[in-house]
Amino acid sequence: MPKECFINDNFLLRSDAAVRLYHEYAERMPIFDFHCHLNPREIYEDKKYADLTEVWLAEDHYKWRLMRANGSEEEYVTGNADNYEKFLKWADTISKAVGNPLYHWTHMELKRYFGVDELLSPKTAPMIWETCKNRLSELSARKLIQMSNVKAICTTDDPADDLKYHIELSNDESFGVRVLPTFRPERALAVGEPGFAEYISRLSEASGIIIESFDDVASALLLRAEFFKSAGCILSDHSFGSPDFTMISEKDARSAFSKAMKGEKPTREEINAYQTELMIDLGRIYNDLGFAMQLHVGVIRNINSRMLEAVGKDAGFDTIGTGISAESLAALMDSLEKTEELPKTIVYCLDGNDYYKIASIIGSFQKSPVKGKHQLGPAWWYNDHYDGIERHLKALGNTGLLGTFIGMLTDSRSFLSYTRHEYFRRILCNLVGDWMQSGFAPMDYELLGGMIEDICYNNAIRYFEINI
Amino acid sequence: MPKECFINDNFLLRSDAAVRLYHEYAERMPIFDFHCHLNPREIYEDKKYADLTEVWLAEDHYKWRLMRANGSEEEYVTGNADNYEKFLKWADTISKAVGNPLYHWTHMELKRYFGVDELLSPKTAPMIWETCKNRLSELSARKLIQMSNVKAICTTDDPADDLKYHIELSNDESFGVRVLPTFRPERALAVGEPGFAEYISRLSEASGIIIESFDDVASALLLRAEFFKSAGCILSDHSFGSPDFTMISEKDARSAFSKAMKGEKPTREEINAYQTELMIDLGRIYNDLGFAMQLHVGVIRNINSRMLEAVGKDAGFDTIGTGISAESLAALMDSLEKTEELPKTIVYCLDGNDYYKIASIIGSFQKSPVKGKHQLGPAWWYNDHYDGIERHLKALGNTGLLGTFIGMLTDSRSFLSYTRHEYFRRILCNLVGDWMQSGFAPMDYELLGGMIEDICYNNAIRYFEINI
Amino acid sequence: MPKECFINDNFLLRSDAAVRLYHEYAERMPIFDFHCHLNPREIYEDKKYADLTEVWLAEDHYKWRLMRANGSEEEYVTGNADNYEKFLKWADTISKAVGNPLYHWTHMELKRYFGVDELLSPKTAPMIWETCKNRLSELSARKLIQMSNVKAICTTDDPADDLKYHIELSNDESFGVRVLPTFRPERALAVGEPGFAEYISRLSEASGIIIESFDDVASALLLRAEFFKSAGCILSDHSFGSPDFTMISEKDARSAFSKAMKGEKPTREEINAYQTELMIDLGRIYNDLGFAMQLHVGVIRNINSRMLEAVGKDAGFDTIGTGISAESLAALMDSLEKTEELPKTIVYCLDGNDYYKIASIIGSFQKSPVKGKHQLGPAWWYNDHYDGIERHLKALGNTGLLGTFIGMLTDSRSFLSYTRHEYFRRILCNLVGDWMQSGFAPMDYELLGGMIEDICYNNAIRYFEINI
Repeated sequence: MPKECFINDNFLLRSDAAVRLYHEYAERMPIFDFHCHLNPREIYEDKKYADLTEVWLAEDHYKWRLMRANGSEEEYVTGNADNYEKFLKWADTISKAVGNPLYHWTHMELKRYFGVDELLSPKTAPMIWETCKNRLSELSARKLIQMSNVKAICTTDDPADDLKYHIELSNDESFGVRVLPTFRPERALAVGEPGFAEYISRLSEASGIIIESFDDVASALLLRAEFFKSAGCILSDHSFGSPDFTMISEKDARSAFSKAMKGEKPTREEINAYQTELMIDLGRIYNDLGFAMQLHVGVIRNINSRMLEAVGKDAGFDTIGTGISAESLAALMDSLEKTEELPKTIVYCLDGNDYYKIASIIGSFQKSPVKGKHQLGPAWWYNDHYDGIERHLKALGNTGLLGTFIGMLTDSRSFLSYTRHEYFRRILCNLVGDWMQSGFAPMDYELLGGMIEDICYNNAIRYFEINI
Repeated sequence: MPKECFINDNFLLRSDAAVRLYHEYAERMPIFDFHCHLNPREIYEDKKYADLTEVWLAEDHYKWRLMRANGSEEEYVTGNADNYEKFLKWADTISKAVGNPLYHWTHMELKRYFGVDELLSPKTAPMIWETCKNRLSELSARKLIQMSNVKAICTTDDPADDLKYHIELSNDESFGVRVLPTFRPERALAVGEPGFAEYISRLSEASGIIIESFDDVASALLLRAEFFKSAGCILSDHSFGSPDFTMISEKDARSAFSKAMKGEKPTREEINAYQTELMIDLGRIYNDLGFAMQLHVGVIRNINSRMLEAVGKDAGFDTIGTGISAESLAALMDSLEKTEELPKTIVYCLDGNDYYKIASIIGSFQKSPVKGKHQLGPAWWYNDHYDGIERHLKALGNTGLLGTFIGMLTDSRSFLSYTRHEYFRRILCNLVGDWMQSGFAPMDYELLGGMIEDICYNNAIRYFEINI
Repeated sequence: MPKECFINDNFLLRSDAAVRLYHEYAERMPIFDFHCHLNPREIYEDKKYADLTEVWLAEDHYKWRLMRANGSEEEYVTGNADNYEKFLKWADTISKAVGNPLYHWTHMELKRYFGVDELLSPKTAPMIWETCKNRLSELSARKLIQMSNVKAICTTDDPADDLKYHIELSNDESFGVRVLPTFRPERALAVGEPGFAEYISRLSEASGIIIESFDDVASALLLRAEFFKSAGCILSDHSFGSPDFTMISEKDARSAFSKAMKGEKPTREEINAYQTELMIDLGRIYNDLGFAMQLHVGVIRNINSRMLEAVGKDAGFDTIGTGISAESLAALMDSLEKTEELPKTIVYCLDGNDYYKIASIIGSFQKSPVKGKHQLGPAWWYNDHYDGIERHLKALGNTGLLGTFIGMLTDSRSFLSYTRHEYFRRILCNLVGDWMQSGFAPMDYELLGGMIEDICYNNAIRYFEINI
């Protein structure tokens, strides 16, 4: 008899209160996935998948890292090995991954989308492969989204993008889910990086503005942000390592731009000044347009240069860096708040040690009339697991108003990742249920069940002022 | 029927052992609140309060931050709105604050001082407002202190202060509680800050010493410290961001002083040298006088410059900064210990991640004959909550002798904050009770109940050598 | 009636699943203690001990720190006081140490090696002293090792060491435990430190190579590493504070060496370059010889200069420092991986906050065919307690494959410290048992019991490719 899966109805719900909070409040709330990396074209074209390797292993660098940690040759990770053999390597890997969120996600995805109840292991792999292959013939991108009770999705998009698929989707009355673009001007900020000048010319073309100076960059981005807004955009996104936003200098910012366009390397100070000045300009634009500003901070990318050359970016070689200093984040927020132009801001930090620091900073800029105007973004990437989510929720509760939190997102490239919302909700309900059961919080379902519903869905809808 | 309050007898006590430790040992111990920000004049004059807004919201920047996070306009926070309307805003805020220590403190204060058993919410606010208004007519500063079984209080005072109210109180035989001053020479250390020269002239006047050089500062402070000692002072207090105490240079210290007195800005190095040299001088003074030295490290103050201008300092715009480096703290302690002049030292860090680092440093300077001569100060400010207190206690236990810990303090401006001692004691008893119940510690009430009593009160009395 | 000791069969095992995992899987696994500081001569000579002070207090700076924290005069710590009086001071100290791992270790050692069931306190001290004195007459270094079911031990040795006792022990057929040397070229890396030139001449003599330049250092170390390999060595060891391995410069490395040999002080940059270049050379050597590379990072040593002078090094005055930056560790690993010469690497960090950062870095260099080629070393020194071990295991699980973890070590100078393996195993079984019991992990003893066995012993045997 095969081992029964542990992903049962009360998975992660340790108390009666947790069970009740989850099943009576959290479970039935829809999903608003306000940050992900889904490809809007795949939604528009309603992509289908031939097998589990295609749907699971083709683009998931979380899984690639674990496979390498299990000693798998790169051929089976990102290389040209047969799909079934790749899957067998994954099955062997996951059987050593108890304690890793991928152990949970894998079995939740098998159960929710494929009805598979067995643990994935080398022994069960052949049977699970077949079962899922059959089931995949009936599934597609849109079906997976709809099965998951998703009401709206924000993808992640370059300002130079024409948003063709977003526009097509908004006109497609057969698909009731809103798919909105997110304004992510990462390449316009990458003034010290290769490809900057080429990108500026792409941005110039997209905006219709001749970009000859630092100031033209902001002008071009403003036009594109307005275009994004017309296509439904409600937020922006940024990723930084350890930016220094105390470097306020228009002169250095201009000099960084000029050097970069001539193919010269700007100094560290000039790069910092460029990013600081451009972020201040962008912050004002976001505030004017009503966009929230997402800041993802603390990644160091591509630390394994041999593998960067061999398999490229976003392939599992990014790591937790030093993060943003308190002075730097405070300087950016203060620069914008001085003139009351600080937009709604969501800060995600890759180092979970930084939650209290970040929360204490953003808590110093809260301002009427928005409830929870500045948010400590949910547990991100290396923190997106049981302990990390609980740590984030506790930090949030201890430093601010848990009841105004806008909740979880997938941050994923996969249509199967909506189970991460279920995962988050179970952890949230377990935490709050434990508080109730142990007398840490009042045994008041109206109060706490309502808070759960707000965190799962209502707060985000209200915060982003979206009409569903 | 109104929801019954969750602040019952066994609040936070999850095991039978915890219940017994709390009710048989912790509960009956008096309070020695060795660090707070109460105003001695208000104790002397036995201040009374008209309503909950006056007693709760007039000076509490913890609450102000949450109200802003809930989208309250500043008018209702620090502004001129009606007291009752301000209270309603607070009632709405607190109803979203489950998971925040203020949720517990609010309901503990309502229960202990006002007998209120309902949860505060917009619905219950009118009734609670009235009940408390009535009750406040019978309460006063001294009554609140006495109701809380407080034996001694250390306030926080400037060296130039005349300690008038402390002296009056020590002569007032009708009030059995000792109210002692704490020597906090913050402004004498603020060599780079506005107002420094004016302060030096105030210090000069208070001490009767003409202050013309760096060395005169220490001489004046010595006289004032001796005066403070005569008024019962047993400890000093300091607050720093990320000081660099490796900068030992008398020349730079002198230069910092001269520049500052002439209205010039000293360099960063000079400021660091001034603070280092003065702290070494002060450390020796404290050691001579038998004062303990409190170091609060890691705050960045007033990061929101618009609000600093609008509502001033200490209004909820301070944040967790980088903290003190291991090298810096070690350098200060080592400089003093070289000549065996390091006083008893209590280090509080605002970043809870630093507990182990700080504990490992102070543990390298422990010295006979004082038990626990150097202390990892209890969970401070952004750490003063269930998780933070437990984290602190575990760090302390894991790195040193929990049995020598001098325990909790309020750090508060409010006469209602003594419930924070109850809060701490419940968390302590719950932790130790869980250790006993689970076999992590022996089921030995004599040993562990005794330790609880020591931490609650006896150790502090012994450590500060105070006669009660 | 004396209080019964809490070190019972199910000590630390809170659930039925934990009990079963420990007693059916973990308990019976042998020990491979791959990192310790035992003296091979004492093993060879089968050292005996006169009393508890000799076996417990003679070399244990963990205990010394606690005794000082308890106000003991140095005479009773490292001084010339009578052994029995020293023991009484320790008995008084430990009775205040509930919550400290030494409270557990002390009672585990009393129970396992001496059959003592009482809590150590001033009251029980005389009886326990006598009991243990009697028992010690039957015990010895080898007996303690054999009683603990140890199969192999890796000591820590200088490259200039002649490994006489390792060689003797490998020829001693009466003792079935393998005692292997570890290559720790600490002094060859200490280019800025006193005694460097003297050490280089010792290394020169040991290797037979005239060392006149930076390059000769690596050549000499290669010869010594080959000799170590011939004596059974399978790993190296390094200890650093906050090294900067981004400083790649052969020129500066050479200059550091020349200056140091002339008694001049190299610059900080030169020291960093020397250490970086030498670590790259050593990494290649280790990779060629199949040694694993251990990196211990984040200590600041000897911060109390008065006590350094009074009682010397390794006496309880080392502390948690800043640790290694992500950029630095990534630079070292990347430099070696560029040419696929990165050896198996085990990184231990003294700051428990760094686990996720370190895990994310080493996870970016995992590579076939070794399972878990790079390891987050187990909870070290100030982290070697219940909370620290659990924190480490969770970090490991959340970021990688717990099933490939090579497990615990003692890092100790004492033959009684094998109980730390029992301690680790109980904590591991309790964590995994809790996962099973609560539904966080499947209730599958074959899967999880097997994982426990692998972590306790099998993985290390496989990882180090040792034949037992």
